[in-house]
Amino acid sequence: MAMTDAAIPRGLKGVIVADTALGDVRGLEGFYHYRQYSAPELAAVRTFEDVWYLLFEGELPSAAARDRFVAHLATVRDLPSEVLAILPAVAGAQTAPLGALRTALSHLAAVEAMPPTYDASPAVIRANALRLCAVTPVLIAALYRASIGIEPVAPRPDLTTAANYLYMIDGELPDPARARALEQYLILGIDHGFNASTFTARVVTSTGADVGAAVVAALGALSGPLHGGAPSRALDTLDAIGSPEHTEAWVRRAVAEGERIMGFGHAVYRTADPRSVMLRDVARSFGGPRVDFAVQVEATVERVLEELKPGRELHTNVEYYAGLVMELCGIPRALFTSTFAASRTVGWCAHILEQSTESAIIRPSARYVGPDAPEPVPVAT
Amino acid sequence: MAMTDAAIPRGLKGVIVADTALGDVRGLEGFYHYRQYSAPELAAVRTFEDVWYLLFEGELPSAAARDRFVAHLATVRDLPSEVLAILPAVAGAQTAPLGALRTALSHLAAVEAMPPTYDASPAVIRANALRLCAVTPVLIAALYRASIGIEPVAPRPDLTTAANYLYMIDGELPDPARARALEQYLILGIDHGFNASTFTARVVTSTGADVGAAVVAALGALSGPLHGGAPSRALDTLDAIGSPEHTEAWVRRAVAEGERIMGFGHAVYRTADPRSVMLRDVARSFGGPRVDFAVQVEATVERVLEELKPGRELHTNVEYYAGLVMELCGIPRALFTSTFAASRTVGWCAHILEQSTESAIIRPSARYVGPDAPEPVPVAT
Repeated sequence: MAMTDAAIPRGLKGVIVADTALGDVRGLEGFYHYRQYSAPELAAVRTFEDVWYLLFEGELPSAAARDRFVAHLATVRDLPSEVLAILPAVAGAQTAPLGALRTALSHLAAVEAMPPTYDASPAVIRANALRLCAVTPVLIAALYRASIGIEPVAPRPDLTTAANYLYMIDGELPDPARARALEQYLILGIDHGFNASTFTARVVTSTGADVGAAVVAALGALSGPLHGGAPSRALDTLDAIGSPEHTEAWVRRAVAEGERIMGFGHAVYRTADPRSVMLRDVARSFGGPRVDFAVQVEATVERVLEELKPGRELHTNVEYYAGLVMELCGIPRALFTSTFAASRTVGWCAHILEQSTESAIIRPSARYVGPDAPEPVPVAT
Repeated sequence: MAMTDAAIPRGLKGVIVADTALGDVRGLEGFYHYRQYSAPELAAVRTFEDVWYLLFEGELPSAAARDRFVAHLATVRDLPSEVLAILPAVAGAQTAPLGALRTALSHLAAVEAMPPTYDASPAVIRANALRLCAVTPVLIAALYRASIGIEPVAPRPDLTTAANYLYMIDGELPDPARARALEQYLILGIDHGFNASTFTARVVTSTGADVGAAVVAALGALSGPLHGGAPSRALDTLDAIGSPEHTEAWVRRAVAEGERIMGFGHAVYRTADPRSVMLRDVARSFGGPRVDFAVQVEATVERVLEELKPGRELHTNVEYYAGLVMELCGIPRALFTSTFAASRTVGWCAHILEQSTESAIIRPSARYVGPDAPEPVPVAT
């Protein structure tokens, strides 16, 4: 039985291919949630580890469960010697932002012989997922340092995921405000509906492949420009404008010429992106001329659009303030996309855990539209 | 707009998600084709490079086009020094059959800075696809030799893809019959409908990611046990039986106990698998007791099934004679799945080329089935 293509929108848009208890996006309401909780509200009052636990376990941790979880994470963060050995070679190839991370994670999953989810126990699948999520920020920081020719900094057991990340990048303990700002960004990025990378992770998991294969595949999907997730592009808008006195003229020209303004607009949200709303507040808590500039540009774009193209709902997307927040946290721009990936890996893995309880392989059909077959094969000339 | 889940079969089975001119499988007829030609007929009378050209270019090559294509392939097979450098470390991790290949291909795509298909020209995308297909057998052979601690053998410009592969594995020129048998297997494996790895490659491509990201993701999907593609499993049946005089009793016991017999049965074919039919002939052309044994086991399984479970259509699948043919060609069993991947990479890349001409990202939806949101986030304890 093949459904007619008339019934299937291009790109499967709006076609429900899975049930999930992990969360949802309500684009018209400007709302998204992890399990039953508002994601921005979680980011406002909870830690990254709490939200990670929520997605993996289905509930927020008790104090005792949190302590156990955090203590366990500290034991599964270290890079194995086989992976450390290839980092300088792999980091040298860091031309594509996610390529080196993909290679290193692929190697790590192989050397640790992660078994197929097909016949692994739920406990083993969960342990592999935790391991990959815990090690990803460590790998990103180590790859970054290798790319500039310096030794990695080992994670500290007493630091949170976010604080450790900043610490491993520059080797200095971050101040708590920066670590907390990054943590809030990381929470907001964990999951966001059934995007292409999440779907990829679930398709690969549906074949019974190991968690590493699924995460590596998802990283590939995330690297696609149509997926989004390139927060450095939004800063390019600020760079292009240069300084506040040029904003009005630059924006008027861009809008008049119908130019795409990086950092504005989203496939799902027609309202303000709730991630952007929260990250603007996070950025504002730092203050300073850079933040004022970004806020001024946002306000100018919205005002000029309303004047020149009324009715067009175009707001900042997550990239706009995400880029600014990461910059304020001291993260090198080359790491912005990888940092997003570190957050999203937790979401992918939660989906992998959920998918691994399903038995059906995801295997749709294609419609053959070539010449009628078979024609006899002509003799080679 | 979300389609109701009632309309969507589990795993998207039978749901058409793309148009393709690359080929199709007609399971009820026991027939599959590449473009308008029967795949087994192509395998009977054409070279691997001819069929590769057919899938990439849409037509079989003229003599001049073939010469140009083959000459070009010889120039894009070599491993870059950055990849050679990590092979010993990566090969040591060859616990999962495809894990090391995935890591090495990921690294190669990164060091060669393959650009996103999103804004690359068709010529660049095609060149990247050719490169990955040409280098994959070279990588597999080099990884194999690295795994046993010996230096890689460089490909020879005067050998075909199949002959080169055998040559690079053991360092000796293969006899023509073995090279041709392998070539026929490689042709038969290039494509086979819209399987999960092919779909994965297309989803990743739909994000605008580079060809390397898509192939690496597809390798992950191929590694899943539900995908199939593990021809060594079929030889396990012969190993378990041991020798011809045990066949009757072994098969009767297995069928009576409802045991799954590896190498028999397929998700799509209800008739004999046309790949199996052809590979049986290829195997028979070698002759010898091993082939006689395999044919005897096949006949016994079919006879005993007809007797004990009449009406149950269960024939050998591609793995059964594929494993035997690869064994006869002298390919180590540890390389069977990778060898299949070397063939299938050409199919994936043909699909990647086709998908790269589409503009829509493949981004379906999930249905949220958790508790109603939002609930207020409880204060951390």
